[in-house]
Amino acid sequence: MPTDLEKQVQNLQDQLNQLKSTQAKDQISIIVFSGDLDKILASMIIATGARAMDIEVKMFFTFWGTTMLRDKNKTVKGKDFMSKMFGFMLPKGSSQLKLSKLNMSGMGTAMLKGLMKKKNVASLEEMIKTAGELGVHINICQMSMDLMGFKKEEMIDYPNLTYCGVGTYLSDAGESRIQLFI
Amino acid sequence: MPTDLEKQVQNLQDQLNQLKSTQAKDQISIIVFSGDLDKILASMIIATGARAMDIEVKMFFTFWGTTMLRDKNKTVKGKDFMSKMFGFMLPKGSSQLKLSKLNMSGMGTAMLKGLMKKKNVASLEEMIKTAGELGVHINICQMSMDLMGFKKEEMIDYPNLTYCGVGTYLSDAGESRIQLFI
Amino acid sequence: MPTDLEKQVQNLQDQLNQLKSTQAKDQISIIVFSGDLDKILASMIIATGARAMDIEVKMFFTFWGTTMLRDKNKTVKGKDFMSKMFGFMLPKGSSQLKLSKLNMSGMGTAMLKGLMKKKNVASLEEMIKTAGELGVHINICQMSMDLMGFKKEEMIDYPNLTYCGVGTYLSDAGESRIQLFI
Repeated sequence: MPTDLEKQVQNLQDQLNQLKSTQAKDQISIIVFSGDLDKILASMIIATGARAMDIEVKMFFTFWGTTMLRDKNKTVKGKDFMSKMFGFMLPKGSSQLKLSKLNMSGMGTAMLKGLMKKKNVASLEEMIKTAGELGVHINICQMSMDLMGFKKEEMIDYPNLTYCGVGTYLSDAGESRIQLFI
Repeated sequence: MPTDLEKQVQNLQDQLNQLKSTQAKDQISIIVFSGDLDKILASMIIATGARAMDIEVKMFFTFWGTTMLRDKNKTVKGKDFMSKMFGFMLPKGSSQLKLSKLNMSGMGTAMLKGLMKKKNVASLEEMIKTAGELGVHINICQMSMDLMGFKKEEMIDYPNLTYCGVGTYLSDAGESRIQLFI
Repeated sequence: MPTDLEKQVQNLQDQLNQLKSTQAKDQISIIVFSGDLDKILASMIIATGARAMDIEVKMFFTFWGTTMLRDKNKTVKGKDFMSKMFGFMLPKGSSQLKLSKLNMSGMGTAMLKGLMKKKNVASLEEMIKTAGELGVHINICQMSMDLMGFKKEEMIDYPNLTYCGVGTYLSDAGESRIQLFI
């Protein structure tokens, strides 16, 4: 028979285990809602920076953010009229994104890209490649895919890419130490 | 007289209780700063999705976000000149919100609304109703109300609606597992 | 020799200490990415409000956000062509920021500033001063400084101002109870 004190100690351990199981992980969860080049760059700099510090990264691309993940070399046939319209109007991949400010018909965007090269900052395309190598998880909002008429076959090849809904996002965010909406 | 070990065990329990009291709740805190239709939709999808997973939701509507909560069928008399101006220039409720991109004089916004209907995504008005039924808490920034000259009498009827300041937001956010600024 | 129970109690204390060391601090971490007057105001209201509640505040100014921290009375000579261009095109300090919506060639911005004065809301310049007095930490993204060609000598005088990278941001955010991207 355990003594009263032994029971108390066991009970403390149970409470402690319960507390540990709800503890946030060393993980960052980022909603990438924006499709602006500057904000996308910020999200990728944070994501790759976090992996360099061994922090897990879960990115959830939704709405305009999904346009960054289109592959400019892939085309899908047999889309309906609305999907074709959206496909035509929205940027096709990272190289077509524009600055949210000072775009000036593309001049500002070209200036920034030139400066990034000059100052040895990795280009967005290089960052995406690095993110894949470092194990950044990319989740794409299925509802956004449906609304914009994007098909899985026209998205980029990326090692850790999953299609999911807001439930998956909330699970990931709930166990993350840091959450951002970009 | 308690033994040394008994005292230690009691002390452990005290430390554990202290830790538990500062533990984040299963709650999400969202600042809705934007008045853009796309961002507002994102915030409502997250909010209702969270309630479906039994996560508490505290939304704090501020600046342009407050315009979503105006009731288009309510009018307030006797406003001063500036309040009338703002009231006239800002969207009057959820049905007047526009997309942040591709609005194209309303055509893009109409396209998205049409697509949402076609794909069986709930409209913003339905989401607000659902949010109320599911117990999403809506807090409105009193300072924003004052600055824009909005009166309580012109806001929508909603079951859990409170007017408060940044202090309430910070308390809610501090005890939430997830915080977003949209 | 400690008994089994004594060992267990010691082990519990170790686990508890470990848990405490990873516990989030009463601290808020804010990325200020935007250079829009309305969003900057929101970030400063949250920052000063948090200090009033004795919450530590770490702000990380990056991209367009850095323009708020330029001193309109300081000039740096000998910049290269691109830096001069950016310096000319971007707002020079808090007084030149504009609203993200309803700017209307400056009329909307002037209207808001007038309203803030009338309703006894502190101006942005007063908020920055208060933030400094209350001990709000301002970190500036070094990479953004480099890209935009800003020099340290042209930034405002502020008591707690540091230049750093995304690593410092992630450390600060990881130990904060609240994180926002504005």
